[in-house]
Amino acid sequence: MFFRQLFDKESSTYTYILADETTKEAIVIDAVIEQHERDVKFLQELGFKVIYAFDTHIHADHVTGMGKLKQALGCKIGQPDTDGLTNADFVIHDGDSITFGQYKIKAIKTPGHTNTDTSYIIDNRVFTGDCLFVRGTGRTDFQSGSAKTMYESITQKLFILPDNTLVYPAHDYKGMMLSTIAEEKHFNPRLTKGKDKFIEIMENLNLPHPHKIDIAVPANLACGL
Amino acid sequence: MFFRQLFDKESSTYTYILADETTKEAIVIDAVIEQHERDVKFLQELGFKVIYAFDTHIHADHVTGMGKLKQALGCKIGQPDTDGLTNADFVIHDGDSITFGQYKIKAIKTPGHTNTDTSYIIDNRVFTGDCLFVRGTGRTDFQSGSAKTMYESITQKLFILPDNTLVYPAHDYKGMMLSTIAEEKHFNPRLTKGKDKFIEIMENLNLPHPHKIDIAVPANLACGL
Repeated sequence: MFFRQLFDKESSTYTYILADETTKEAIVIDAVIEQHERDVKFLQELGFKVIYAFDTHIHADHVTGMGKLKQALGCKIGQPDTDGLTNADFVIHDGDSITFGQYKIKAIKTPGHTNTDTSYIIDNRVFTGDCLFVRGTGRTDFQSGSAKTMYESITQKLFILPDNTLVYPAHDYKGMMLSTIAEEKHFNPRLTKGKDKFIEIMENLNLPHPHKIDIAVPANLACGL
Repeated sequence: MFFRQLFDKESSTYTYILADETTKEAIVIDAVIEQHERDVKFLQELGFKVIYAFDTHIHADHVTGMGKLKQALGCKIGQPDTDGLTNADFVIHDGDSITFGQYKIKAIKTPGHTNTDTSYIIDNRVFTGDCLFVRGTGRTDFQSGSAKTMYESITQKLFILPDNTLVYPAHDYKGMMLSTIAEEKHFNPRLTKGKDKFIEIMENLNLPHPHKIDIAVPANLACGL
Protein backbone atom coordinates (compact mmCIF):
# COMPACT_ATOMS: atom_id res chain seq x y z
CA MET A 1 0.00 0.00 0.00
CA PHE A 2 1.23 3.45 -0.87
CA PHE A 3 1.19 5.86 2.05
CA ARG A 4 2.23 9.49 2.32
CA GLN A 5 1.80 12.16 4.98
CA LEU A 6 1.69 15.80 3.87
CA PHE A 7 1.70 18.99 5.96
CA ASP A 8 0.02 22.37 5.75
CA LYS A 9 2.30 24.73 7.65
CA GLU A 10 -0.21 27.53 8.18
CA SER A 11 -2.82 25.40 9.94
CA SER A 12 -0.35 22.67 11.03
CA THR A 13 -2.66 20.10 9.42
CA TYR A 14 -1.61 16.69 8.17
CA THR A 15 -3.18 15.32 5.02
CA TYR A 16 -2.89 11.62 4.27
CA ILE A 17 -2.86 9.85 0.93
CA LEU A 18 -3.30 6.09 0.80
CA ALA A 19 -3.41 4.10 -2.41
CA ASP A 20 -3.43 0.65 -3.88
CA GLU A 21 -0.32 0.67 -6.07
CA THR A 22 -1.78 -2.00 -8.34
CA THR A 23 -5.22 -0.54 -9.09
CA LYS A 24 -4.04 3.06 -8.41
CA GLU A 25 -7.22 3.72 -6.44
CA ALA A 26 -6.52 6.28 -3.72
CA ILE A 27 -8.17 7.98 -0.77
CA VAL A 28 -7.36 11.36 0.77
CA ILE A 29 -7.95 12.12 4.46
CA ASP A 30 -8.14 15.72 5.73
CA ALA A 31 -7.23 17.67 2.61
CA VAL A 32 -6.60 21.42 3.09
CA ILE A 33 -8.04 23.80 0.51
CA GLU A 34 -4.89 25.94 0.32
CA GLN A 35 -2.88 22.85 -0.66
CA HIS A 36 -5.16 21.88 -3.53
CA GLU A 37 -2.63 22.46 -6.29
CA ARG A 38 0.15 20.63 -4.47
CA ASP A 39 -2.11 17.67 -3.75
CA VAL A 40 -3.56 17.39 -7.27
CA LYS A 41 -0.12 17.63 -8.85
CA PHE A 42 1.25 14.94 -6.55
CA LEU A 43 -1.72 12.62 -7.12
CA GLN A 44 -1.49 13.06 -10.88
CA GLU A 45 2.28 12.51 -10.96
CA LEU A 46 1.82 9.18 -9.24
CA GLY A 47 -1.06 8.24 -11.53
CA PHE A 48 -3.51 7.78 -8.68
CA LYS A 49 -7.25 7.87 -9.18
CA VAL A 50 -8.77 9.36 -6.04
CA ILE A 51 -12.05 7.63 -5.41
CA TYR A 52 -12.86 9.03 -1.97
CA ALA A 53 -11.82 12.09 -0.01
CA PHE A 54 -13.07 12.51 3.53
CA ASP A 55 -12.29 14.22 6.82
CA THR A 56 -11.88 13.11 10.40
CA HIS A 57 -14.26 15.83 11.57
CA ILE A 58 -15.71 19.24 10.79
CA HIS A 59 -12.51 21.25 11.17
CA ALA A 60 -12.64 24.73 12.73
CA ASP A 61 -9.13 25.86 11.80
CA HIS A 62 -9.04 25.42 8.03
CA VAL A 63 -11.38 24.78 5.12
CA THR A 64 -11.37 21.23 3.80
CA GLY A 65 -9.90 20.65 0.35
CA MET A 66 -12.18 17.73 -0.47
CA GLY A 67 -14.74 19.79 -2.39
CA LYS A 68 -12.07 21.12 -4.74
CA LEU A 69 -10.66 17.60 -5.11
CA LYS A 70 -14.11 16.43 -6.19
CA GLN A 71 -14.35 19.23 -8.74
CA ALA A 72 -10.87 18.50 -10.11
CA LEU A 73 -10.77 14.72 -9.91
CA GLY A 74 -14.36 13.53 -9.70
CA CYS A 75 -13.96 11.70 -6.39
CA LYS A 76 -16.78 11.15 -3.92
CA ILE A 77 -16.54 13.19 -0.74
CA GLY A 78 -17.56 12.18 2.76
CA GLN A 79 -17.83 13.60 6.26
CA PRO A 80 -18.86 12.08 9.60
CA ASP A 81 -22.59 12.27 10.30
CA THR A 82 -22.94 15.80 11.60
CA ASP A 83 -25.95 18.08 12.03
CA GLY A 84 -26.19 20.64 9.24
CA LEU A 85 -23.98 18.68 6.83
CA THR A 86 -24.57 19.36 3.12
CA ASN A 87 -22.92 18.40 -0.16
CA ALA A 88 -21.44 15.14 1.09
CA ASP A 89 -21.69 12.21 -1.30
CA PHE A 90 -21.53 9.82 1.61
CA VAL A 91 -21.89 10.11 5.35
CA ILE A 92 -19.50 8.21 7.59
CA HIS A 93 -20.94 6.26 10.53
CA ASP A 94 -19.27 4.30 13.29
CA GLY A 95 -18.05 0.97 11.93
CA ASP A 96 -18.24 1.90 8.25
CA SER A 97 -15.54 0.58 5.96
CA ILE A 98 -14.24 2.49 2.96
CA THR A 99 -12.68 0.41 0.20
CA PHE A 100 -9.94 1.43 -2.24
CA GLY A 101 -8.47 -1.26 -4.43
CA GLN A 102 -7.69 -4.30 -2.28
CA TYR A 103 -7.69 -2.25 0.94
CA LYS A 104 -10.33 -1.29 3.47
CA ILE A 105 -10.10 1.48 6.05
CA LYS A 106 -12.49 1.32 8.99
CA ALA A 107 -14.19 4.27 10.69
CA ILE A 108 -14.55 4.33 14.46
CA LYS A 109 -16.22 7.18 16.29
CA THR A 110 -13.88 8.89 18.72
CA PRO A 111 -15.91 11.94 19.82
CA GLY A 112 -14.73 14.53 22.31
CA HIS A 113 -13.16 17.27 20.18
CA THR A 114 -16.46 17.44 18.32
CA ASN A 115 -19.38 15.12 18.89
CA THR A 116 -18.78 13.33 15.57
CA ASP A 117 -14.98 13.03 15.41
CA THR A 118 -14.00 9.85 13.64
CA SER A 119 -10.73 7.92 13.57
CA TYR A 120 -9.79 5.59 10.74
CA ILE A 121 -7.92 2.33 11.13
CA ILE A 122 -6.03 0.38 8.52
CA ASP A 123 -3.44 -2.31 9.25
CA ASN A 124 -1.05 -0.91 11.85
CA ARG A 125 -2.04 2.73 11.35
CA VAL A 126 -4.74 4.85 12.99
CA PHE A 127 -5.65 8.35 11.85
CA THR A 128 -6.83 10.03 15.01
CA GLY A 129 -8.04 13.42 13.76
CA ASP A 130 -8.30 15.97 16.57
CA CYS A 131 -8.83 13.33 19.22
CA LEU A 132 -5.38 11.96 20.03
CA PHE A 133 -2.34 14.07 19.17
CA VAL A 134 1.36 13.31 19.68
CA ARG A 135 1.82 13.99 23.42
CA GLY A 136 -1.43 15.97 23.41
CA THR A 137 -5.07 15.97 22.36
CA GLY A 138 -7.48 18.15 20.45
CA ARG A 139 -9.31 20.81 22.45
CA THR A 140 -12.80 20.16 23.78
CA ASP A 141 -14.22 23.64 24.35
CA PHE A 142 -16.39 24.15 21.26
CA GLN A 143 -18.39 22.23 18.59
CA SER A 144 -20.11 20.07 21.25
CA GLY A 145 -16.74 19.01 22.60
CA SER A 146 -16.46 17.13 25.87
CA ALA A 147 -13.35 16.28 27.85
CA LYS A 148 -15.09 13.34 29.52
CA THR A 149 -16.16 11.94 26.15
CA MET A 150 -12.69 12.44 24.69
CA TYR A 151 -11.09 10.59 27.57
CA GLU A 152 -13.45 7.68 27.02
CA SER A 153 -12.80 7.69 23.26
CA ILE A 154 -9.04 7.62 23.74
CA THR A 155 -8.91 5.06 26.51
CA GLN A 156 -11.71 2.78 25.28
CA LYS A 157 -11.38 3.04 21.47
CA LEU A 158 -7.74 3.91 20.75
CA PHE A 159 -5.71 2.58 23.64
CA ILE A 160 -7.15 -0.90 23.02
CA LEU A 161 -5.32 -1.01 19.68
CA PRO A 162 -2.01 -2.92 19.57
CA ASP A 163 0.81 -0.99 21.25
CA ASN A 164 2.82 -0.71 18.04
CA THR A 165 -0.04 0.88 16.07
CA LEU A 166 1.22 4.06 14.43
CA VAL A 167 -0.76 7.15 15.45
CA TYR A 168 -1.21 9.79 12.75
CA PRO A 169 -2.98 12.92 14.04
CA ALA A 170 -4.74 15.65 12.06
CA HIS A 171 -2.43 18.26 13.55
CA ASP A 172 0.83 18.73 15.32
CA TYR A 173 2.34 21.97 16.51
CA LYS A 174 5.71 20.76 17.75
CA GLY A 175 7.14 19.05 14.67
CA MET A 176 6.26 15.56 15.84
CA MET A 177 4.66 13.76 12.97
CA LEU A 178 3.48 10.51 14.35
CA SER A 179 3.53 8.38 17.43
CA THR A 180 2.49 4.95 18.59
CA ILE A 181 -0.27 3.79 20.90
CA ALA A 182 2.38 2.63 23.38
CA GLU A 183 4.09 6.03 23.40
CA GLU A 184 0.84 7.87 23.98
CA LYS A 185 -0.27 5.50 26.72
CA HIS A 186 2.97 6.07 28.58
CA PHE A 187 4.07 9.61 27.73
CA ASN A 188 1.04 11.72 26.82
CA PRO A 189 1.10 14.23 29.68
CA ARG A 190 -2.66 14.77 29.57
CA LEU A 191 -3.51 11.09 29.68
CA THR A 192 -1.30 9.49 32.29
CA LYS A 193 -3.09 10.94 35.31
CA GLY A 194 -6.61 9.53 35.09
CA LYS A 195 -9.97 10.84 33.90
CA ASP A 196 -10.57 13.51 36.54
CA LYS A 197 -7.16 15.07 36.01
CA PHE A 198 -7.64 14.94 32.23
CA ILE A 199 -10.93 16.83 32.54
CA GLU A 200 -9.32 19.37 34.87
CA ILE A 201 -6.43 19.91 32.40
CA MET A 202 -8.82 20.31 29.47
CA GLU A 203 -11.03 22.77 31.35
CA ASN A 204 -8.07 25.00 32.15
CA LEU A 205 -6.30 25.24 28.81
CA ASN A 206 -7.53 28.82 28.25
CA LEU A 207 -6.92 28.62 24.52
CA PRO A 208 -7.76 31.53 22.22
CA HIS A 209 -10.93 31.34 20.11
CA PRO A 210 -10.00 29.73 16.74
CA HIS A 211 -9.85 32.73 14.44
CA LYS A 212 -11.15 30.83 11.41
CA ILE A 213 -14.02 29.00 13.14
CA ASP A 214 -16.79 31.26 11.83
CA ILE A 215 -15.65 30.69 8.26
CA ALA A 216 -14.31 27.16 8.50
CA VAL A 217 -17.19 25.36 10.23
CA PRO A 218 -19.95 26.41 7.78
CA ALA A 219 -17.58 25.85 4.85
CA ASN A 220 -16.72 22.38 6.11
CA LEU A 221 -20.35 21.47 6.77
CA ALA A 222 -20.69 22.11 3.02
CA CYS A 223 -17.57 19.95 2.36
CA GLY A 224 -15.67 23.04 1.20
CA LEU A 225 -18.07 23.62 -1.67
CA MET B 1 15.12 -0.34 13.61
CA PHE B 2 13.36 2.62 15.21
CA PHE B 3 12.97 5.58 12.91
CA ARG B 4 11.37 8.97 13.43
CA GLN B 5 11.33 12.19 11.42
CA LEU B 6 10.87 15.47 13.33
CA PHE B 7 10.33 19.00 12.00
CA ASP B 8 11.47 22.48 13.00
CA LYS B 9 8.82 24.79 11.63
CA GLU B 10 10.85 27.99 11.77
CA SER B 11 13.73 26.75 9.62
CA SER B 12 11.70 23.98 7.91
CA THR B 13 14.41 21.52 8.95
CA TYR B 14 13.93 17.79 9.41
CA THR B 15 15.75 16.02 12.20
CA TYR B 16 16.05 12.24 12.10
CA ILE B 17 16.36 9.80 14.96
CA LEU B 18 17.38 6.21 14.26
CA ALA B 19 17.87 3.62 16.95
CA ASP B 20 18.44 -0.03 17.60
CA GLU B 21 15.41 -0.99 19.69
CA THR B 22 17.31 -3.83 21.33
CA THR B 23 20.49 -2.06 22.45
CA LYS B 24 18.76 1.37 22.59
CA GLU B 25 21.75 2.95 20.85
CA ALA B 26 20.61 5.91 18.76
CA ILE B 27 21.92 8.46 16.29
CA VAL B 28 20.56 11.93 15.52
CA ILE B 29 20.97 13.56 12.12
CA ASP B 30 20.58 17.34 11.67
CA ALA B 31 19.41 18.38 15.13
CA VAL B 32 18.21 22.00 15.47
CA ILE B 33 19.30 23.93 18.56
CA GLU B 34 15.85 25.45 19.16
CA GLN B 35 14.36 21.95 19.38
CA HIS B 36 16.83 20.75 22.01
CA GLU B 37 14.29 20.30 24.79
CA ARG B 38 11.80 18.49 22.56
CA ASP B 39 14.47 16.16 21.24
CA VAL B 40 16.01 15.33 24.63
CA LYS B 41 12.60 14.69 26.16
CA PHE B 42 11.65 12.40 23.30
CA LEU B 43 14.94 10.49 23.39
CA GLN B 44 14.71 10.05 27.15
CA GLU B 45 11.07 8.91 27.04
CA LEU B 46 12.03 6.16 24.63
CA GLY B 47 15.05 5.20 26.70
CA PHE B 48 17.49 5.77 23.87
CA LYS B 49 21.18 6.33 24.44
CA VAL B 50 22.41 8.71 21.74
CA ILE B 51 25.89 7.70 20.81
CA TYR B 52 26.41 9.93 17.78
CA ALA B 53 24.86 13.16 16.53
CA PHE B 54 25.98 14.55 13.19
CA ASP B 55 24.89 16.79 10.35
CA THR B 56 24.59 16.44 6.62
CA HIS B 57 26.50 19.71 6.12
CA ILE B 58 27.40 23.05 7.66
CA HIS B 59 23.93 24.56 7.69
CA ALA B 60 23.47 28.25 6.94
CA ASP B 61 19.85 28.59 8.03
CA HIS B 62 19.89 27.32 11.60
CA VAL B 63 22.35 26.42 14.33
CA THR B 64 22.92 22.71 14.84
CA GLY B 65 21.62 21.15 18.03
CA MET B 66 24.35 18.53 18.22
CA GLY B 67 26.57 20.48 20.62
CA LYS B 68 23.77 20.82 23.16
CA LEU B 69 22.95 17.14 22.70
CA LYS B 70 26.56 16.31 23.56
CA GLN B 71 26.39 18.48 26.67
CA ALA B 72 23.10 16.93 27.77
CA LEU B 73 23.59 13.32 26.75
CA GLY B 74 27.33 12.78 26.34
CA CYS B 75 27.15 11.69 22.70
CA LYS B 76 29.98 12.16 20.23
CA ILE B 77 29.38 14.79 17.56
CA GLY B 78 30.47 14.75 13.94
CA GLN B 79 30.46 16.94 10.85
CA PRO B 80 31.65 16.38 7.29
CA ASP B 81 35.31 17.31 6.72
CA THR B 82 35.08 21.05 6.24
CA ASP B 83 37.68 23.82 6.39
CA GLY B 84 37.53 25.69 9.68
CA LEU B 85 35.72 22.93 11.55
CA THR B 86 36.25 22.85 15.32
CA ASN B 87 34.84 20.94 18.28
CA ALA B 88 33.87 17.83 16.31
CA ASP B 89 34.62 14.53 18.00
CA PHE B 90 34.80 12.85 14.63
CA VAL B 91 35.04 14.01 11.05
CA ILE B 92 32.95 12.31 8.40
CA HIS B 93 34.62 11.31 5.13
CA ASP B 94 33.23 9.77 1.97
CA GLY B 95 32.56 6.08 2.52
CA ASP B 96 32.66 6.19 6.33
CA SER B 97 30.24 3.98 8.22
CA ILE B 98 28.71 4.95 11.55
CA THR B 99 27.56 2.08 13.74
CA PHE B 100 24.71 2.11 16.28
CA GLY B 101 23.72 -1.21 17.80
CA GLN B 102 23.40 -3.77 15.03
CA TYR B 103 23.04 -1.09 12.33
CA LYS B 104 25.44 0.81 10.13
CA ILE B 105 24.73 4.02 8.23
CA LYS B 106 27.06 4.91 5.37
CA ALA B 107 28.24 8.39 4.41
CA ILE B 108 28.52 9.34 0.76
CA LYS B 109 29.72 12.73 -0.38
CA THR B 110 27.09 14.58 -2.39
CA PRO B 111 28.59 18.06 -2.76
CA GLY B 112 26.97 20.92 -4.63
CA HIS B 113 25.03 22.83 -1.98
CA THR B 114 28.29 23.10 -0.07
CA ASN B 115 31.54 21.45 -1.07
CA THR B 116 31.29 18.90 1.76
CA ASP B 117 27.58 17.98 1.78
CA THR B 118 27.15 14.37 2.77
CA SER B 119 24.21 11.99 2.35
CA TYR B 120 23.71 8.98 4.58
CA ILE B 121 22.35 5.63 3.44
CA ILE B 122 20.84 2.87 5.52
CA ASP B 123 18.70 0.03 4.16
CA ASN B 124 16.08 1.59 1.89
CA ARG B 125 16.49 5.15 3.20
CA VAL B 126 18.79 7.96 2.12
CA PHE B 127 19.16 11.23 4.03
CA THR B 128 20.00 13.73 1.35
CA GLY B 129 20.70 16.90 3.33
CA ASP B 130 20.51 20.03 1.17
CA CYS B 131 21.39 18.15 -1.99
CA LEU B 132 18.18 16.47 -3.16
CA PHE B 133 14.86 17.84 -1.90
CA VAL B 134 11.32 16.63 -2.63
CA ARG B 135 10.70 18.05 -6.11
CA GLY B 136 13.58 20.45 -5.64
CA THR B 137 17.20 20.79 -4.54
CA GLY B 138 19.26 22.86 -2.16
CA ARG B 139 20.64 26.14 -3.48
CA THR B 140 24.16 26.36 -4.86
CA ASP B 141 25.02 30.05 -4.59
CA PHE B 142 27.13 30.21 -1.42
CA GLN B 143 29.46 28.09 0.78
CA SER B 144 31.43 26.86 -2.26
CA GLY B 145 28.24 25.62 -3.88
CA SER B 146 28.21 24.49 -7.50
CA ALA B 147 25.24 23.62 -9.68
CA LYS B 148 27.39 21.41 -11.90
CA THR B 149 28.73 19.49 -8.91
CA MET B 150 25.24 19.11 -7.45
CA TYR B 151 23.90 17.72 -10.71
CA GLU B 152 26.69 15.16 -10.76
CA SER B 153 26.11 14.25 -7.10
CA ILE B 154 22.42 13.70 -7.66
CA THR B 155 22.64 11.82 -10.92
CA GLN B 156 25.80 9.79 -10.18
CA LYS B 157 25.49 9.15 -6.42
CA LEU B 158 21.77 9.27 -5.59
CA PHE B 159 19.91 8.30 -8.76
CA ILE B 160 21.90 5.03 -8.89
CA LEU B 161 20.17 3.90 -5.69
CA PRO B 162 17.19 1.53 -6.07
CA ASP B 163 14.07 3.31 -7.32
CA ASN B 164 12.11 2.54 -4.18
CA THR B 165 14.73 4.09 -1.85
CA LEU B 166 13.01 6.59 0.44
CA VAL B 167 14.46 10.09 0.17
CA TYR B 168 14.54 12.11 3.39
CA PRO B 169 15.78 15.68 2.85
CA ALA B 170 17.12 18.15 5.42
CA HIS B 171 14.40 20.62 4.51
CA ASP B 172 11.07 20.96 2.83
CA TYR B 173 9.06 24.11 2.37
CA LYS B 174 5.88 22.70 0.82
CA GLY B 175 4.79 20.15 3.43
CA MET B 176 6.19 17.17 1.53
CA MET B 177 8.11 15.07 3.96
CA LEU B 178 9.77 12.43 1.92
CA SER B 179 9.98 11.05 -1.58
CA THR B 180 11.54 8.17 -3.45
CA ILE B 181 14.41 8.01 -5.90
CA ALA B 182 11.92 7.02 -8.63
CA GLU B 183 9.69 10.03 -7.93
CA GLU B 184 12.62 12.45 -8.02
CA LYS B 185 14.03 10.94 -11.20
CA HIS B 186 10.70 11.39 -12.94
CA PHE B 187 9.08 14.43 -11.35
CA ASN B 188 11.76 16.73 -9.93
CA PRO B 189 11.26 19.77 -12.16
CA ARG B 190 14.90 20.86 -11.88
CA LEU B 191 16.30 17.48 -12.79
CA THR B 192 14.31 16.16 -15.70
CA LYS B 193 15.80 18.50 -18.31
CA GLY B 194 19.51 17.65 -18.36
CA LYS B 195 22.62 19.18 -16.84
CA ASP B 196 22.76 22.43 -18.81
CA LYS B 197 19.16 23.28 -18.01
CA PHE B 198 19.73 22.39 -14.34
CA ILE B 199 22.67 24.79 -14.16
CA GLU B 200 20.63 27.50 -15.88
CA ILE B 201 17.76 27.01 -13.43
CA MET B 202 20.11 27.14 -10.43
CA GLU B 203 21.87 30.26 -11.68
CA ASN B 204 18.59 32.11 -12.02
CA LEU B 205 16.85 31.35 -8.73
CA ASN B 206 17.53 34.85 -7.38
CA LEU B 207 17.01 33.73 -3.79
CA PRO B 208 17.42 36.17 -0.90
CA HIS B 209 20.62 36.02 1.17
CA PRO B 210 20.03 33.58 4.07
CA HIS B 211 19.44 35.92 6.99
CA LYS B 212 21.06 33.61 9.55
CA ILE B 213 24.16 32.68 7.53
CA ASP B 214 26.55 35.00 9.35
CA ILE B 215 25.57 33.48 12.68
CA ALA B 216 24.82 29.93 11.63
CA VAL B 217 27.91 29.03 9.61
CA PRO B 218 30.49 29.93 12.28
CA ALA B 219 28.30 28.37 14.97
CA ASN B 220 27.98 25.18 12.94
CA LEU B 221 31.69 25.01 12.16
CA ALA B 222 31.99 24.85 15.96
CA CYS B 223 29.27 22.13 16.06
CA GLY B 224 26.91 24.53 17.85
CA LEU B 225 29.26 24.83 20.82
